[in-house]
Amino acid sequence: MKRRSFLVSTTAALALPLLRGTQAAPLRVNGNRLNGWLARFDAIGRTPGGINRVAYSPADLEGRTFTLDLFRVAGLDPVIDPAGNIRGRLPGTAGSLPPILIGSHVDSVTDGGNYDGPVGSFGAIEVARTLRDRNVRLRHPLEVVVWQNEEGGTIGSKLAIGALPAADLDKTARSGKTIREGIALVGGDVARLGEAVRQKGDLACYIELHIEQGGRLEQAGLQIGVVEGIVGLRWFEITVTGFANHAGTTPMDQRQDAMLAAAKFTVAINEAIRSEPGRQVATVGRVVPSPNTTNVIPGQVVLTVDLRDLAPEKLARFSARFEAIAGEIGQATGTTFRFAPLVHSEPALADPRVMGWIDGAAASLGLTRQRMPSGAGHDAQEIARIAPMGMIFVPSVGGISHSPKEFSKPEDITNGANVLLNAVLAADRGLS
Amino acid sequence: MKRRSFLVSTTAALALPLLRGTQAAPLRVNGNRLNGWLARFDAIGRTPGGINRVAYSPADLEGRTFTLDLFRVAGLDPVIDPAGNIRGRLPGTAGSLPPILIGSHVDSVTDGGNYDGPVGSFGAIEVARTLRDRNVRLRHPLEVVVWQNEEGGTIGSKLAIGALPAADLDKTARSGKTIREGIALVGGDVARLGEAVRQKGDLACYIELHIEQGGRLEQAGLQIGVVEGIVGLRWFEITVTGFANHAGTTPMDQRQDAMLAAAKFTVAINEAIRSEPGRQVATVGRVVPSPNTTNVIPGQVVLTVDLRDLAPEKLARFSARFEAIAGEIGQATGTTFRFAPLVHSEPALADPRVMGWIDGAAASLGLTRQRMPSGAGHDAQEIARIAPMGMIFVPSVGGISHSPKEFSKPEDITNGANVLLNAVLAADRGLS
Repeated sequence: MKRRSFLVSTTAALALPLLRGTQAAPLRVNGNRLNGWLARFDAIGRTPGGINRVAYSPADLEGRTFTLDLFRVAGLDPVIDPAGNIRGRLPGTAGSLPPILIGSHVDSVTDGGNYDGPVGSFGAIEVARTLRDRNVRLRHPLEVVVWQNEEGGTIGSKLAIGALPAADLDKTARSGKTIREGIALVGGDVARLGEAVRQKGDLACYIELHIEQGGRLEQAGLQIGVVEGIVGLRWFEITVTGFANHAGTTPMDQRQDAMLAAAKFTVAINEAIRSEPGRQVATVGRVVPSPNTTNVIPGQVVLTVDLRDLAPEKLARFSARFEAIAGEIGQATGTTFRFAPLVHSEPALADPRVMGWIDGAAASLGLTRQRMPSGAGHDAQEIARIAPMGMIFVPSVGGISHSPKEFSKPEDITNGANVLLNAVLAADRGLS
Repeated sequence: MKRRSFLVSTTAALALPLLRGTQAAPLRVNGNRLNGWLARFDAIGRTPGGINRVAYSPADLEGRTFTLDLFRVAGLDPVIDPAGNIRGRLPGTAGSLPPILIGSHVDSVTDGGNYDGPVGSFGAIEVARTLRDRNVRLRHPLEVVVWQNEEGGTIGSKLAIGALPAADLDKTARSGKTIREGIALVGGDVARLGEAVRQKGDLACYIELHIEQGGRLEQAGLQIGVVEGIVGLRWFEITVTGFANHAGTTPMDQRQDAMLAAAKFTVAINEAIRSEPGRQVATVGRVVPSPNTTNVIPGQVVLTVDLRDLAPEKLARFSARFEAIAGEIGQATGTTFRFAPLVHSEPALADPRVMGWIDGAAASLGLTRQRMPSGAGHDAQEIARIAPMGMIFVPSVGGISHSPKEFSKPEDITNGANVLLNAVLAADRGLS
């Protein structure tokens, strides 16, 4: 056994590029082990309402302790950096190369599921462990990271690129702790945050495995999503002003009904967003009429629009179109629409070479796949600002996430980790 | 002067029917006096937010004291009956005839105006005072009533026809007092409520002067509304159920968006209600999405529909049509609509003869007028169950009511009281 292991290791380390050229079987992770970790992790923060490992909560700390153990067993010698992120690495054979970074997060939303984050975190650890077990040495160092507090606004990855505004340290996170308190709690050190910051050139690339959190892959019957980027978003708060009046005595043709105007707008932007091909989405998620009483025509409605796409051009064009629609409806209904921007974020595009390595890895494993945007935010969107980025999606059953019903099949998770492993190998070969 | 007054009185009392046949000038109220009372009344319950004479509040009691003084000065010898309504009367010349009843209310909504109620209450007192001052004796007794707590659900007039459910006595009114406590507070006697109840045949007719509370008269440039009846209403609470999902990751064609469905429904019932001539109205006044968050597709929306018309047939037909529309939209959007009735009340029609007297009175005064429904509820809708009913509307500037901006012009108020006076005279002649 030992000898065989030795043989594999030397062969793999030295000859894998050659073997690949002759269609050798791709390396594979231990899927049972990976899914076993996920199954054990499900007990941490489990409540009747779902998984509750909100960042800086006792369950989050317990989850991090569990994760640190996995790092250690994988031989990754974990450290908690000043930002509170967990990091471990396998050395590379070419001393001066920057590391390939892989990872995700283990904190959850309130009443969430067990897959959003842990799949990519444990998948990355399993990839490192497989490489080490098989004595496959990469040219680049391989660094595994578990970002802290992703669900509270990609805090750990923002800190890792020096992009968290100082004022945000004193904002209160969902756990009730401030970010500053949370960093100390998870073992970071606010006084030394600068030491955790990575600059352009510090990383060879970043690849994150994650569940899709949507239903596109399942709908299409595909196994792997090759993420083209993380969509940018425009959130608007729109105030529709009409005139509140008696619902019984005001004739239909003498109304300035802010709710009717808001409803027409909701229908019209839905038609607009669907009127051209593409994966742009727009949602009216919050609607608050005033006075919100059965027998009064609403005089005002405050509503939100959440618009997302990968192309800045589309974000700008649809924003303008929505304002034009509002203008027309305002004219027709005797109301006014006022737009206030709430949140604007720019798309974070995946690197074409990284997409190619992910695509090639999936192909070599015989997995069906498609390129697709990520409609949700991820730590990868932060790291994309300083390094070539790619993401691998695996299907979410029913497209459900941020819910106790969140579920991804073990075989899909194993597929995802195998793609991550082989994409890392391809990156190691392809990157200088 | 005294002799002249005597002459007028006897002439008027005995010869008015004859004089009318020869186009004598119609009798008129003292409009300055009436509008003076209203101006003084404006100080009672006036707050920065508007008039606050909510039933059973200190300001309501102060308003009733003011009103009782007007009754006394008019020689109406007021009593507070066990239901808490203020009543006073002028005797008739034919002893056994039932009284003609006129009046309105003096309580207000929260942050309301000075015209909804007081115009008809003081108008009725002024009519009685004019008759007394001019020594015009009617065949029927003339009774003036000021109903208690109209704005809390026509409580005083419901008690007057024995229609208030016993359980409602312990409901809490807007003042914080129960109805039971309120009745005691205004001088009624809950133990003797039965004595305040009127049966069919007890009243010759009931005529109420009121501001329109809508904009139809102003829009049409008319002085008087001859009310055809008080609309019936159907209030529905409708629960739209879809599926809450991520606003970023859920493709547009895979959504079950309860807010989009609710918006389509709001637009569609508006189109339906406007698709045929008539004065039916429908309003979506309350809309509560869940979870009501910017980045989540709403999984549920609870909304209300307020549907009103004078014709029970239209209420039934539009209710059915709205349910059909909901069914179609549910099908198209992957959502379900569940209708729950909140409040159903039947239309209360005005008596054709009373309408004729009001119309004739307005004509004799040279006032422009139209027949119209009342979209708002009034005490008259209760009394219509036991007696021939009619209502006189005067214009509301801007159609605004239940608002500090509520205003009716003094000359319109005087016109309304003159119509009430001459309609009473016509009723006295016309009724057996």
